[in-house]
Amino acid sequence: MTGTERVLARLDASFDDAEKRWLDWLRIPSVSADPAHAPDIRRAAEYAVAQLADLGFTASVRETAGAPCVVAHHPGPGGDAPHLLYYGHYDVQPAEPLDLWKNPPFEPTVVEGPHGPRVVARGSVDDKGQVAMWLAAFRAWHAESGSLPCRVSVLLEGEEEISSPNLKPFVSANRDELAADAVVISDTNMWDVATPALTTSLRGIVYIQVDVKAANRDLHSGMYGGSALNPINALVAALGQLKDETGRIRIEGFYDGVREVPPEQKRQWEALKFDEARLLGDIGLTTGAGEAGYSALERLWARPTCDINGVWGGYQGPGSKTVIPAAAGAKVSFRLVEGQDAEKVIAGFERFLRARMPRDARLDFTVFGSGTGVAFSTSDRFVQAAAAALKVEYGREAAFVGCGASIPVVETLQAELHAPVVLMGFGLDDDQPHSPNEKFEVCCFRHGARAHVRLLGLLG
Amino acid sequence: MTGTERVLARLDASFDDAEKRWLDWLRIPSVSADPAHAPDIRRAAEYAVAQLADLGFTASVRETAGAPCVVAHHPGPGGDAPHLLYYGHYDVQPAEPLDLWKNPPFEPTVVEGPHGPRVVARGSVDDKGQVAMWLAAFRAWHAESGSLPCRVSVLLEGEEEISSPNLKPFVSANRDELAADAVVISDTNMWDVATPALTTSLRGIVYIQVDVKAANRDLHSGMYGGSALNPINALVAALGQLKDETGRIRIEGFYDGVREVPPEQKRQWEALKFDEARLLGDIGLTTGAGEAGYSALERLWARPTCDINGVWGGYQGPGSKTVIPAAAGAKVSFRLVEGQDAEKVIAGFERFLRARMPRDARLDFTVFGSGTGVAFSTSDRFVQAAAAALKVEYGREAAFVGCGASIPVVETLQAELHAPVVLMGFGLDDDQPHSPNEKFEVCCFRHGARAHVRLLGLLG
Repeated sequence: MTGTERVLARLDASFDDAEKRWLDWLRIPSVSADPAHAPDIRRAAEYAVAQLADLGFTASVRETAGAPCVVAHHPGPGGDAPHLLYYGHYDVQPAEPLDLWKNPPFEPTVVEGPHGPRVVARGSVDDKGQVAMWLAAFRAWHAESGSLPCRVSVLLEGEEEISSPNLKPFVSANRDELAADAVVISDTNMWDVATPALTTSLRGIVYIQVDVKAANRDLHSGMYGGSALNPINALVAALGQLKDETGRIRIEGFYDGVREVPPEQKRQWEALKFDEARLLGDIGLTTGAGEAGYSALERLWARPTCDINGVWGGYQGPGSKTVIPAAAGAKVSFRLVEGQDAEKVIAGFERFLRARMPRDARLDFTVFGSGTGVAFSTSDRFVQAAAAALKVEYGREAAFVGCGASIPVVETLQAELHAPVVLMGFGLDDDQPHSPNEKFEVCCFRHGARAHVRLLGLLG
Repeated sequence: MTGTERVLARLDASFDDAEKRWLDWLRIPSVSADPAHAPDIRRAAEYAVAQLADLGFTASVRETAGAPCVVAHHPGPGGDAPHLLYYGHYDVQPAEPLDLWKNPPFEPTVVEGPHGPRVVARGSVDDKGQVAMWLAAFRAWHAESGSLPCRVSVLLEGEEEISSPNLKPFVSANRDELAADAVVISDTNMWDVATPALTTSLRGIVYIQVDVKAANRDLHSGMYGGSALNPINALVAALGQLKDETGRIRIEGFYDGVREVPPEQKRQWEALKFDEARLLGDIGLTTGAGEAGYSALERLWARPTCDINGVWGGYQGPGSKTVIPAAAGAKVSFRLVEGQDAEKVIAGFERFLRARMPRDARLDFTVFGSGTGVAFSTSDRFVQAAAAALKVEYGREAAFVGCGASIPVVETLQAELHAPVVLMGFGLDDDQPHSPNEKFEVCCFRHGARAHVRLLGLLG
């Protein structure tokens, strides 16, 4: 029996204890959005500090301008063992609407499901459950060996569900303390219950509000139609040209830096046999939109997009009103992939619009957010170790998947710490993390904890 | 001294009396929009009946499902004198906001202005003042000759300001009684205070709501962007193609039946030296929109338009929300000119949109109103008589002008009675008929009454 195998055996033998600690943490309603829960937020942080101190970490609650962070350090075995920073968050989404919960959200309930028992509670998976998973792995290593096989630091935040307003300043101010060889995060999903996944690319986003103003007041379309500029017509005519008939975005330079998915990655994605028809069927659609000539997963993970997220202007009420309005506006976002330059996309979009605005149309251009896409090399040593740990644990290859959305925390940590980020998550698509009856499969928790034991063993 | 000249002399001599009758009528707050004013509406109708009865008309209040009409008949001299139907309305717009009136809206006040005295009151011009004007003409003819030179019928309604919901059924039910050789209406404007005008064309309108539905719920643009159809993108892309770069509308068959303005009419319009820069300057614009290659008056009066009057979809609040919405919509109207087929335009627009909708986009198409443009021949005998009356009265040619908007009453009367409509109005652009401090110039009232005396004389 190897060291790792003994640790896994100990984890399995004490699994009830690991589950109990997970459920105890879930009983603390650490809702970051609601100031009334500030004491619970602190309690949840202190609970984590106590767990970590118990395992030989130097752990403390650290103040920020908002909810506190938890920072902990374990020296590991010394020598040239790598230094890993585990990030997670102990805050949870609000539980409302409460009447849709079958059990009280902060009284975790074990329910039998198609994959065996599952824990239903707010935070069961997002993210207390996934953090409790790697805490259980640490505990098993500590119990078996009296230490951890790697040097380990921990950073937990309490504001992830409210967009992490204080994370960047905190990490920036403590950059030296938090510096590590790699960041490990469990806050993503598996491909399916039998197929583990590592998320190796995230799309970025730029989000822009466009306001077009024309006359100094609303006008009668009979009296002025044919003479006065209509800002809705102008806005719609310009935005209507953003894509060509193949779905390709027509902004000059927009695709600069976008790389085709490498053939090997493409083959792996094809092997996942992603069922786009099912994804679309669930939402009442039949046909994939987006760029022609790309597979569904490429369109979702590896190709940039342009979506008009909002549009407004003139009369929106019942019946008719013959108005040429004074103004119109839209919110437009572009999902970006690694290699694109967000600032260049923004500038290109602004030029695209200005070139199409009639005289007298006054264009206001407001950028609400901008982040480039990120991609982690699948040949990175830490990503490879995680893939190996998952393969042994599940008996099948981990899928290298992308994520169509951005995860701002990942961008922040990568930008501040310049370390590769291993996104090894064990959620399932039906976990409903922000909805009533959030759940986490016990089998996912158990395999997840075991995979974290293996990862530490492989890297140590 | 001809008969007409004697009548004019009598009108001038008794002008104070005409003005008094006009002001007395204005004191009745006949606001059709407000049910609390129903008794005033009736009083205003009865006032008109009394005036007409006084002049030898068989006059009565006639019930409708809403505010009553006034119908009156005068046999005239008999023989082959033409039969004219005078239409007007005795209801007025609400006076609110009251605090913006310099004098109480239903206490008419004579104020000195750049063109001499003016009467400030709600209804001073629209339309009690302009009706009082032709009643004064009738009174002068009656006083001088004991009769009128033409057979005259009168139709007054009390719901014009609330879109005449009962006019069409009333006219339809009394078509034989109201049939006449021509309809005469004074509810429009002069070109300017020195230049009389006859309105000989009105644009029609079709007004359509377009709803595009896609997924069965709002989606996260990161998770679905590149796969799920965005109905805002689809709607905007389709509507954005409605006009080419010269402003010409690209719907197939849209311009069928549209005639170029005849050279003589064009010359007359050019002679009016319409100042588009000033029209636009008042509303904060500098450059005429609409079709390239046409003068401002052509674009406003004689060319069809397409305006998006409203658009909506997705997130319209502050900041950003990364949503692919389930639906988007727009209100689109087309101003039509005489010769266009409204039904054909509607069908062409629907085809245009459907051809551009991606699969999965469910298009709802709701028609809210439709009316073709109308034009009255300037060589019509009644229009010619009106032009002649105006030329003698003002010492200059009357302008044959168009109106960019539709006047539903005109369409109703024309459609029901199949008679030419003479639109001979004496309002000025700054009369503010639907705003606080509505006014009518006394000089316009006087010339208008005199022009009506002349018109009756010329036709009699």
